Amino acid sequence: MIKNCAVILAAGEGKRMKSSHPKVLCEILFKPMIDWVTACAVEGGVADLCVVIGHLSEVVRSHLNPSIETALQSELLGTGHAVMQAKDFLKRHGSGNVLILNADAPLMDSETISNSLNFHVRNENAVTVIAAKVENPFGYGRIVRKDDDTLLKIVEEKEATDEEKEIKEVNSGAYWFNCQALLTALERIIAKKNVAADGSKKEYYLTDIIEVILGLGLKATAFNAESPHLVPGANDRVQLLQLNEIAKKAVLKKHMLAGVSIPCADGVIIGPDVVIGRDTVILPGTILKGKTIIGSDCTIGPNSLVDNTVIGCNVTLNNTQSVDSVIADEAQIGPFVRLRPNSNIGKGVRVGNFVEIKNSNIGDGTKISHLSYIGDSDFGSDINVGCGCATVNYNGSTKSRTVVGNDAFIGCHNSLVAPVSIGERAYTAAGSTITEDVPADSLALARARQVIKKDWVKNKSPYKKK
Amino acid sequence: MIKNCAVILAAGEGKRMKSSHPKVLCEILFKPMIDWVTACAVEGGVADLCVVIGHLSEVVRSHLNPSIETALQSELLGTGHAVMQAKDFLKRHGSGNVLILNADAPLMDSETISNSLNFHVRNENAVTVIAAKVENPFGYGRIVRKDDDTLLKIVEEKEATDEEKEIKEVNSGAYWFNCQALLTALERIIAKKNVAADGSKKEYYLTDIIEVILGLGLKATAFNAESPHLVPGANDRVQLLQLNEIAKKAVLKKHMLAGVSIPCADGVIIGPDVVIGRDTVILPGTILKGKTIIGSDCTIGPNSLVDNTVIGCNVTLNNTQSVDSVIADEAQIGPFVRLRPNSNIGKGVRVGNFVEIKNSNIGDGTKISHLSYIGDSDFGSDINVGCGCATVNYNGSTKSRTVVGNDAFIGCHNSLVAPVSIGERAYTAAGSTITEDVPADSLALARARQVIKKDWVKNKSPYKKK
Amino acid sequence: MIKNCAVILAAGEGKRMKSSHPKVLCEILFKPMIDWVTACAVEGGVADLCVVIGHLSEVVRSHLNPSIETALQSELLGTGHAVMQAKDFLKRHGSGNVLILNADAPLMDSETISNSLNFHVRNENAVTVIAAKVENPFGYGRIVRKDDDTLLKIVEEKEATDEEKEIKEVNSGAYWFNCQALLTALERIIAKKNVAADGSKKEYYLTDIIEVILGLGLKATAFNAESPHLVPGANDRVQLLQLNEIAKKAVLKKHMLAGVSIPCADGVIIGPDVVIGRDTVILPGTILKGKTIIGSDCTIGPNSLVDNTVIGCNVTLNNTQSVDSVIADEAQIGPFVRLRPNSNIGKGVRVGNFVEIKNSNIGDGTKISHLSYIGDSDFGSDINVGCGCATVNYNGSTKSRTVVGNDAFIGCHNSLVAPVSIGERAYTAAGSTITEDVPADSLALARARQVIKKDWVKNKSPYKKK
Repeated sequence: MIKNCAVILAAGEGKRMKSSHPKVLCEILFKPMIDWVTACAVEGGVADLCVVIGHLSEVVRSHLNPSIETALQSELLGTGHAVMQAKDFLKRHGSGNVLILNADAPLMDSETISNSLNFHVRNENAVTVIAAKVENPFGYGRIVRKDDDTLLKIVEEKEATDEEKEIKEVNSGAYWFNCQALLTALERIIAKKNVAADGSKKEYYLTDIIEVILGLGLKATAFNAESPHLVPGANDRVQLLQLNEIAKKAVLKKHMLAGVSIPCADGVIIGPDVVIGRDTVILPGTILKGKTIIGSDCTIGPNSLVDNTVIGCNVTLNNTQSVDSVIADEAQIGPFVRLRPNSNIGKGVRVGNFVEIKNSNIGDGTKISHLSYIGDSDFGSDINVGCGCATVNYNGSTKSRTVVGNDAFIGCHNSLVAPVSIGERAYTAAGSTITEDVPADSLALARARQVIKKDWVKNKSPYKKK
Repeated sequence: MIKNCAVILAAGEGKRMKSSHPKVLCEILFKPMIDWVTACAVEGGVADLCVVIGHLSEVVRSHLNPSIETALQSELLGTGHAVMQAKDFLKRHGSGNVLILNADAPLMDSETISNSLNFHVRNENAVTVIAAKVENPFGYGRIVRKDDDTLLKIVEEKEATDEEKEIKEVNSGAYWFNCQALLTALERIIAKKNVAADGSKKEYYLTDIIEVILGLGLKATAFNAESPHLVPGANDRVQLLQLNEIAKKAVLKKHMLAGVSIPCADGVIIGPDVVIGRDTVILPGTILKGKTIIGSDCTIGPNSLVDNTVIGCNVTLNNTQSVDSVIADEAQIGPFVRLRPNSNIGKGVRVGNFVEIKNSNIGDGTKISHLSYIGDSDFGSDINVGCGCATVNYNGSTKSRTVVGNDAFIGCHNSLVAPVSIGERAYTAAGSTITEDVPADSLALARARQVIKKDWVKNKSPYKKK
Repeated sequence: MIKNCAVILAAGEGKRMKSSHPKVLCEILFKPMIDWVTACAVEGGVADLCVVIGHLSEVVRSHLNPSIETALQSELLGTGHAVMQAKDFLKRHGSGNVLILNADAPLMDSETISNSLNFHVRNENAVTVIAAKVENPFGYGRIVRKDDDTLLKIVEEKEATDEEKEIKEVNSGAYWFNCQALLTALERIIAKKNVAADGSKKEYYLTDIIEVILGLGLKATAFNAESPHLVPGANDRVQLLQLNEIAKKAVLKKHMLAGVSIPCADGVIIGPDVVIGRDTVILPGTILKGKTIIGSDCTIGPNSLVDNTVIGCNVTLNNTQSVDSVIADEAQIGPFVRLRPNSNIGKGVRVGNFVEIKNSNIGDGTKISHLSYIGDSDFGSDINVGCGCATVNYNGSTKSRTVVGNDAFIGCHNSLVAPVSIGERAYTAAGSTITEDVPADSLALARARQVIKKDWVKNKSPYKKK
């Protein structure tokens, strides 16, 4: 089998982004644009990638998976010049085809990649321009076809005749090239004098390469992709918002058609890698990110932020932020809850308002209803934690764990000073600071007795006069 | 007076919902679709209802008000067959008219019901098709009228000629029938052999019944309703979102025209039964549900969830969740507050950040400013509750009440261990666990004296080296 | 230099707002409409203002900056009559030009004001009508021009011919008048009998004044402004929402083009006076108000409310409400945090979940991670505050300050009873109520020793039987 490859152009500066960071790391649905493009190449069947980096190249390189090859474009002299920098990579794939993608056009899709490759191979093209029909073609290169439907030329806005301006089929900026044809065309260009009229270095573009290929009499055709969304790139942050909106709608639609209820999509952002079971309801203001997996019949939101969290079925997560955690079936979380990394919440657990959990295991059926912090802890099942409890996991120097046995009852306003262990069925009195281990079945008290000073208020008048 | 009735079709499976629950319980503005339909029938003057149930019939039946009659369609053989299952109900209303509604077309409105009934009666129709003009008629049955404006036929998309496809007046799927005419038509259909060409049971539809009625030479006309929104049903969750958006906008518009300010409608969802006074501002991310009633000059939101709560005038409710509670005039609640059921908040009360109140009465002018939980309590007026207080209402076995008198001062970090009573003007010291009643005008202390260990830090170096 | 002035019409009742408050105080992006109009006059170079007040005049007057002159229209007899009430003001500006603005048309912009003034002066007009082309001119006065492009007349909807109705250039209701010409026209009108046919007082409008000016043969022209958004006024709350949406989009676009990322604009409202640095991300559900200034590379939101707060660079503010505060570089705030007025947060400070800060200075590098209230305090740098701490700043009569030195360690569940001072590097034990000053390098304890009652649970069975 011929092995195909892809060159991804990620060198551009993107001045209109007005950014100190690489343009290609700008995010769509909280995933950098370049990651959308590499992922869709791989999903489209092209796993052998070379990313051309340039502007802030080290930042981009260190973002990429180290297994991805890079080529440096140290002077930004156009997309044709960028591809040239990947010449060694291309030579190694001389017998195959190369896909050229733009790292700032994140809505390319894997179906288009595989369908256009089939088209490219079937037609024995030297180059296949991936094109799409758009409502408003203004600003894009128009696809001008010959009578036999092969490519006559790609004409840019400013060179287009009025008739050509009417063409709605436009160049997406992505292409399949036969590697040999591409290398031949590149050699021709290199052989020319690459100096502009004013003496500066000449820029050259992929469209120049296509002209050379057409000039050589090789076969070029445009593949008409179904989605118009793969065309627009993000050149400024207004366009970035537009691409976010397109991607957001597409992801929400996919989930709705699969049985997820979204009664109001306002502020709902679901990352491309999130999985959601049917009959789950996502309420407004809810962001689901990373590798989050949610079961069926859950209610998530409103106003929740869930990142890299695995959630079972029949879970309620109301006004909660959760990162890198696991929540079992039937848990009821929120409102106003924060689950920090490595929270492992058992089945049917209730975590109520103003509770923070971090790096802890909470056994099935345990209730932590209000105003508490459980950190670095191992809690058994069916424990009742009173209001206002804290695990004192840090003493200024080290962090220690708190262990609480099944069926224990932790009184209100307890400080559990770690390392400390509370036995099964043990009971701690409200207001206690627990500094020593509590045996199973025992009561622990650590508080002063109440004293009354009668008529103290009458005598002292401590209140402000009204 | 002739008594009219309605048959509501709620038997369908709605496979495209991809749901394990009945389709007709899918919600619009947090109210199940079937409840919208039954409510609008009743508001339109038709109180005598029969709901035809089928798919997951027991779930639907148990959702319905027990006063509503049901008929079981045990095999789902079409809308005509569904109406047949209500034959006994229809026979009891033989002298009147019957309205047929679809439980999955929730945006029918009561004006259309009463206006179309008037039209139906005035025209002495055997059947009146409730129709409406829509922008995009694709997929709907087109209303084809005779020259005298009566109904020639309803033609489905796939049978429509190009000319008929241009018709924008479409069948909503709701109808008024003369009961006798409907029963006659049903008898005719039953008399036929109800077996399809392939030997399976034949399905039949309401449109088949209309054909029979037209064949009998009875009068049929279409009533052209004003709103196009009563036509679309929800067949998948994308359509469900669309209906939610239509309903959302309609409800918001009604409130805005009545004097409610909504400076940004994003994430604002107001249920159909909510009442709001004028000059009240609803901020983004705010959901108002159930039988919530809000007075004038309030500011509600942002990011609040209010369910079944009665709120007075001049109330501020900022980033708060409130369920089944009452809040008097001038109360200031939030941000980050949760009012659980049976919270009764007095006039001018201030409930500040990270406070939970449950099943409690809070007297006028009392302040609970921070990080506290008040549950199962009766608080008088003008009390000051310090930061971090908790009523200890649960001892692992029973729940008990806390009573605090007027003008008391509860110090910070107090646990009030219920049952316990604190007298008027009593004062409790910060850090106390109050286990016994405190008389009026008295000071209660329950904490240890402070001890200093000089230079302990110097000697022990408890801190991690930086 | 000729000094120009402006008369701003703010007397109208605006019945369709259904409000008990003045219409002109209705807000766009949380700024009253009249403040938009006065600000844009001043920014357009016209600083000498007279506001005509009428309905609820005292409320409007007390809202305005006292330096702004007002004229009272005690009977609401039209816009022409309103301008008449400013006659004394106009006489004092007799040699200049006067801009007439409507306080309920808040989207006028300063460029239009200065450009139209240049046009007015260059053309030596007696009156310049500020006009704009709109998509749907229905309801607006159409601009009918002569062949030489000067104004023939302004024709209202109900008097317009079908041909005139097609005109898309409409009157914005704002005008530049030569003061002398305006005063002359007003005298002519006053000289007439101002009684209507039915004997009631006659209303007269600015368009009547223009007719008089045209009748006098003076030069009148329309200035065609670029933005259609300056035309619509807010007559009801639906229109108020529409203007909010237009203003919202314009402000967001300005920030995005300058380098601010807004991946989802839902619930994002940015006031017109807010400043944001580049590469800062604003997440959904975030309201930025007042004179808020945000540096670069921050992440603000989701679901945050920031009012009059100055924020440095690289700050994270997650689900936080902040008012009248200052936050230095690299601070990490949230989620679920409230910063009340006069919170001064140092560099690299971490404020974690369920923390409230008020009127306090927090030194660089200090951590307040959970469930705490810091009020009226001066905290040094690199302090660690344990979970569940509270400054007890109020004793029922006075508020006092808490001072904590650098590198101190405050244990969990501490009450710091103000006035109190904790020295540098001092350490307080978990569960302590600190009532006396703690010297530097010392340990303070104020808690009871723990007591264990073995087998108490076994013997007492305090739990509810399951």
